Amino acid sequence: MHLNRLHRLHAAMRRAGCDCVVAIAGPNLYYLTGLSFHLSERPTVGFFPANGDPVLVLGALEASKVAGGAPYPIRTHAYTDADGPVAAFREAAQILSLNRARFGVETRRMRVMELRLIEEAFAQPRVEAAEGLFAELRMTKDEQEIRLMREAVDIAERALLATLPQIKVGLTEREVATELLLQTLRAGSDAELPFAPIIASGPNGALPHASITDRRLQRGDLVTIDWGATRHGYVADLTRTFAIGEVDDELKRIYELVKRANAAAKAATRPGASAAEVDAAARKVIADGGYGQYFVHRVGHGLGLEGHEDPSMHGRNELSLTAGITFTIEPGIYVPGKGGVRIEDDVVVTADGCESLSTLPRDLQSIGG
Amino acid sequence: MHLNRLHRLHAAMRRAGCDCVVAIAGPNLYYLTGLSFHLSERPTVGFFPANGDPVLVLGALEASKVAGGAPYPIRTHAYTDADGPVAAFREAAQILSLNRARFGVETRRMRVMELRLIEEAFAQPRVEAAEGLFAELRMTKDEQEIRLMREAVDIAERALLATLPQIKVGLTEREVATELLLQTLRAGSDAELPFAPIIASGPNGALPHASITDRRLQRGDLVTIDWGATRHGYVADLTRTFAIGEVDDELKRIYELVKRANAAAKAATRPGASAAEVDAAARKVIADGGYGQYFVHRVGHGLGLEGHEDPSMHGRNELSLTAGITFTIEPGIYVPGKGGVRIEDDVVVTADGCESLSTLPRDLQSIGG
Repeated sequence: MHLNRLHRLHAAMRRAGCDCVVAIAGPNLYYLTGLSFHLSERPTVGFFPANGDPVLVLGALEASKVAGGAPYPIRTHAYTDADGPVAAFREAAQILSLNRARFGVETRRMRVMELRLIEEAFAQPRVEAAEGLFAELRMTKDEQEIRLMREAVDIAERALLATLPQIKVGLTEREVATELLLQTLRAGSDAELPFAPIIASGPNGALPHASITDRRLQRGDLVTIDWGATRHGYVADLTRTFAIGEVDDELKRIYELVKRANAAAKAATRPGASAAEVDAAARKVIADGGYGQYFVHRVGHGLGLEGHEDPSMHGRNELSLTAGITFTIEPGIYVPGKGGVRIEDDVVVTADGCESLSTLPRDLQSIGG
Repeated sequence: MHLNRLHRLHAAMRRAGCDCVVAIAGPNLYYLTGLSFHLSERPTVGFFPANGDPVLVLGALEASKVAGGAPYPIRTHAYTDADGPVAAFREAAQILSLNRARFGVETRRMRVMELRLIEEAFAQPRVEAAEGLFAELRMTKDEQEIRLMREAVDIAERALLATLPQIKVGLTEREVATELLLQTLRAGSDAELPFAPIIASGPNGALPHASITDRRLQRGDLVTIDWGATRHGYVADLTRTFAIGEVDDELKRIYELVKRANAAAKAATRPGASAAEVDAAARKVIADGGYGQYFVHRVGHGLGLEGHEDPSMHGRNELSLTAGITFTIEPGIYVPGKGGVRIEDDVVVTADGCESLSTLPRDLQSIGG
């Protein structure tokens, strides 16, 4: 599987005229090698030249991971904490022997630290963004990847269902978040969650990326729950919004608009449709309902080994969707001082439309009241 | 508090001749502003000029965090997903009006993405590492910071104590990790843990950064548990190694060496001692015991808002310690194929020595057998 991915990378590099792709600790390196490293102040950098074996520079205490786990020959250059990484990068550069080469790097992940080490070790490197290359490799999921995402969604959904009966008026957002985390782990998530749950109640719901607070749930609140789970590295990212007891008519109207926008985006999702069309389908429902100015973010984002990956489902992305691409559909309305609603599903493009991997109900449900 | 930190930053910038410090989403931005943002594909970048108010470029859906939460005037430039950040960076550059300026950036955190946006928006920026500046600001903790670290350690220790009675022969590493996570949250940790627990049993203990596996605990194993907790952003990072039933004589000997190395490093920690001396004190014990080649990492690392921060406690760091600096002391021995031991405490330098914030016993304890 990993050797096949390496071959696909080489083919994509040839098309792009890229001499060497560089992936640091994280999902791209994991995707290509199956080796899992944490991003830390010790650089872990994989070089994938168009010709020849990959080369990995890493800290000495990670080196033994490669010995047993590499799916194909990888040359490693390890450095100790006391020596630091400079010499190991120079050794790698000597082996790779690339002059004025075009390097494709992860501009959204690689840090200035690694960039400087590369600039220092190689002769006149030309550093370019490799996001497009990696998106080409990873955006379309194979069957096993979709199976893992389905399992992640199932874990997340079971965790929420186990949490809902315990949500009561008077509980704080933090208490709800802790319970949901417990249930997520108990349901079988990997320990590394894609993100900490968002519990945004009442007026806090007007912040799309609200931080958890000690606010207590009140009757008449809407509460937005945005949570995830991980299964062998693949993530789920879901949102549901609930009513605590009864909510007022405007909140109900907002909820129905978001629900219809979510459905409209799904209906617009099929091979050949653009990311922008999916975004527009949701946006039209909300704008027609009079809340266009309160839908302040894109309709969704790619999902897989990362919580946010390609494609970005925004109004200017003309990418044409194809079967196997996975992303979130998560329209929302955020009214400052009043509250907010978001309904988020994880979908995969199918041969003739899309399938939602998430199945929890989308009708407004009253809880805890 | 945050205004005072800003003033200290300005003083440090004057000494360093830095015109503008840049901090992206994360601990430095949080330290300076109290505003908490997640690192994502949407850049959040704070500019702190030597003169004038700070300027923050961020995604539209984060903008409302600043309105209510800024501790001093901060000018914000928000961008939408569809527009992207380029124009907002240009606006920020116009306001800041810095020409051929010296920018101090977080090379260990800032990504190539943010670097390119800065290089594009400003006239001939000279980009330099600001790690030294931030270390100067953050390395010495104030009383409130040490109180929060003490609370984080207390949460972590209570979590382990609640987990130990449940550890039995036959349990997998993953099951132990899940239980420990549950107990950590139950004990009151923030939802965002500094890292997922490491449970490394038997031969897996020979990997300092082992990944969790489905290996079952066996009688005669050593099992290394490396776990953490977070309290209002401040973290604990602890390790203890236990025997499952009885272990053989070599493992016992290794354990005693590591215990003595841990104690020796603490005894060497006091104002005026260098980081290198602390490392050397631990390393000497292990080398004298014949296992020097198996202690493959530095003796520890700074700790605070980040799980790894300055100072790096390695053998070539001549930094002279002063009261209030906090770091880990975590010597280890890793024998490939056999197993490993690590004993990690979190310490703070005091007026005349050091205090360990962590208090769990360090004698070899047999569990689960």
